[in-house]
Amino acid sequence: MSSERTVLTTQVGIVGGGPAGLMLSHLLHRAGIDSIVVEKRDRDTIHNTHRAGILEAGTVRMLTDSGVDGRVLTEGHEHEGTVLRVQGESHRIDFKELVGESVWLYPQNEVFWDLAAARARDGGDIRWSVRDTEVLDFTTATPKIRFTDAAGEDFEVHCQILVGADGSQGICKWAIPQEERTDNFIEYPFAWFGILTEAPPSAPELIYSNSEFGFALISQRSENVQRMYFQCDPEENVDDWSEERIWAELQRRVDGPDGFQLVRGPIFEKTVLKFRSYVCEPLRHGNLFLVGDAGHTVPPTGAKGLNLAFCDVRVLAPALVDYFRTGNDTGLAGYSATALERVWKAQNFSYWATNLMHTQPGENPFNQKRRFGEFKAITGSERGAAYFAESYTGWSETSTPTHHNAAEGRPPGVNEALMGR
Amino acid sequence: MSSERTVLTTQVGIVGGGPAGLMLSHLLHRAGIDSIVVEKRDRDTIHNTHRAGILEAGTVRMLTDSGVDGRVLTEGHEHEGTVLRVQGESHRIDFKELVGESVWLYPQNEVFWDLAAARARDGGDIRWSVRDTEVLDFTTATPKIRFTDAAGEDFEVHCQILVGADGSQGICKWAIPQEERTDNFIEYPFAWFGILTEAPPSAPELIYSNSEFGFALISQRSENVQRMYFQCDPEENVDDWSEERIWAELQRRVDGPDGFQLVRGPIFEKTVLKFRSYVCEPLRHGNLFLVGDAGHTVPPTGAKGLNLAFCDVRVLAPALVDYFRTGNDTGLAGYSATALERVWKAQNFSYWATNLMHTQPGENPFNQKRRFGEFKAITGSERGAAYFAESYTGWSETSTPTHHNAAEGRPPGVNEALMGR
Repeated sequence: MSSERTVLTTQVGIVGGGPAGLMLSHLLHRAGIDSIVVEKRDRDTIHNTHRAGILEAGTVRMLTDSGVDGRVLTEGHEHEGTVLRVQGESHRIDFKELVGESVWLYPQNEVFWDLAAARARDGGDIRWSVRDTEVLDFTTATPKIRFTDAAGEDFEVHCQILVGADGSQGICKWAIPQEERTDNFIEYPFAWFGILTEAPPSAPELIYSNSEFGFALISQRSENVQRMYFQCDPEENVDDWSEERIWAELQRRVDGPDGFQLVRGPIFEKTVLKFRSYVCEPLRHGNLFLVGDAGHTVPPTGAKGLNLAFCDVRVLAPALVDYFRTGNDTGLAGYSATALERVWKAQNFSYWATNLMHTQPGENPFNQKRRFGEFKAITGSERGAAYFAESYTGWSETSTPTHHNAAEGRPPGVNEALMGR
Repeated sequence: MSSERTVLTTQVGIVGGGPAGLMLSHLLHRAGIDSIVVEKRDRDTIHNTHRAGILEAGTVRMLTDSGVDGRVLTEGHEHEGTVLRVQGESHRIDFKELVGESVWLYPQNEVFWDLAAARARDGGDIRWSVRDTEVLDFTTATPKIRFTDAAGEDFEVHCQILVGADGSQGICKWAIPQEERTDNFIEYPFAWFGILTEAPPSAPELIYSNSEFGFALISQRSENVQRMYFQCDPEENVDDWSEERIWAELQRRVDGPDGFQLVRGPIFEKTVLKFRSYVCEPLRHGNLFLVGDAGHTVPPTGAKGLNLAFCDVRVLAPALVDYFRTGNDTGLAGYSATALERVWKAQNFSYWATNLMHTQPGENPFNQKRRFGEFKAITGSERGAAYFAESYTGWSETSTPTHHNAAEGRPPGVNEALMGR
């Protein structure tokens, strides 16, 4: 509207106010580095958008140790294991016993809410409900973000480092010239039909159920609201599904000799979630850095999306702190390769878990039976179960050299400043 | 030729004198049960046919504990690990340390030779070089094998139990009416180009090498003869490959910053090995039982073929002993399901290892990079490495309930008779 642009100056300009962008902004603030976040949605819209709900221990620690809020510990639920249900028989994978880790059930939109509150509390500069966002000059020393705010005023953010944290549908990665990036992706011939229901939990932990009718995931949200999914055709229309039909479909995918019954309730949300696997390489172009879904997306089966975004932040934040404090850009130079190492491991786990648990349309019977053999190799062996548990909980202790090196390679002051206490 | 058939009577008629058939015949003999083996090839042909060379510990124990011969221990080589080489970097998987087991390098044709010698020593009735073999009446109490021997004489074996141990090209599984069996199979868009060379070993243990040019396996045979393979097109013609070209192809698939060089020598055998995954279900029809490759074949990557055949025998032999000693056919009734449980686990490992290590023609770059992530999840983590090691060495200790139950469910006398000591 206006022909004049108000210029805002900051050290780090962040496009995207989801969990990744806010967590980065929060950590930078703790290290005394200034950032501005621009986000096209408003807080309530993001807060009301239901996404994944499983946090790795490392993700939880990032929230609690950096002083976001302890609500994840009081309102979230620690899950010390999960259940793989195969042909109607449940096999529990005991994360705690196998790899000494847990995951936490705490919805991503609550993580967002806590981060938005922390940023507000600390006086963070977050511009909600912006439109016409553009990124430019990111191969120069002064990258810029242009946007129009909710009141119609035009702005231009001048920064030194630009971060794309704007999710899988964002603009940042597409701003990288096509010849400078590789888009790696595969698609899946199925989607998830997700529901929210007002009912008590059907089980204390997640149940990943493989049945002859296809995959189903019985998840939880709170004492009164539950999240469940079943594998469906990507073109499925939610309006074709009555409550009765949904419950019948979910139930037959968990039926078994143990008589397990889902606890039913009114269904107040129905969505078809399409998904694919995607990785942009590299995750940096000039002074533009991609984090989280802006750089890579995973199918939801392995619950890796948000966790992987936080892992990116865990690599990028100390690199930025180093850079702004000392001018040392070694961390920034290594960001893409370091982050991608974990990304590909998580991509593999997500792909593998997805293919293990879902029935391919028109699947070769050999493959179907082979998958039962694979389930046996996981559920019937402590080593198989430990391999699954380690991947699911996020390679968090001994086997995340990337994460540990990133942390250990920094002067102690940086991490103390970031993670505090 | 002759119009009269000489009738031979025995308890167990075995079609196929490869390692599976001979091991079964040997174990039955030790328990006082009579068998006749018919085999279309002669001993020297089988002995000179080079096959796989990696024996699981359980396979070695079957040879040594049942008094076949200790040559596997004196002439074979214990391998306490193997090397996964990815993008020119070697990662050793230490079987012994990870899962307390080793494998043995001892060629399958030597296993055959030892078994043939043991059967000859013990007066076993093995008919070599037979032709026109047929199986009939196997849903009656008197199954029959018809064949013509090397001298042109016609025979008919009358038995109570018929065993098909005649390999993937055998006649027995095809004798089962099509509506009574399910053929599960998948094919692969690549094959192995295998060579034998007169040279000292290039490495002390097997090297499974994944490179941008495709897969290669650097194996050993003896101090002076080595076995190597590289992934090729199934239609590759060995005559198109000079020694020089073969060595260049193998070398570039193991090249790396460590400067690893293959030790070259004259190549005296070149073969293209096509392979697929196949499982016949069930492994029994009436009084006909399938063991080994006659019932299921695996791609060679996981080195599971012979080992799986011996696992079948380890389930079938005690079941037959029970049956002939006490009339109890519980073991026979459970044979197919029990054997198939392990078969599918091994099929999954073989399929997975094959797809992990080979480059698909026209492979999606996402998948190629994902596989590097998968290698990292195996080589960069003790749990991932243990999962691989357990599968490779054959789930031999804690996690083979099938095997252990099969053994433990029998009266002690049976296993003592079978395995001795």
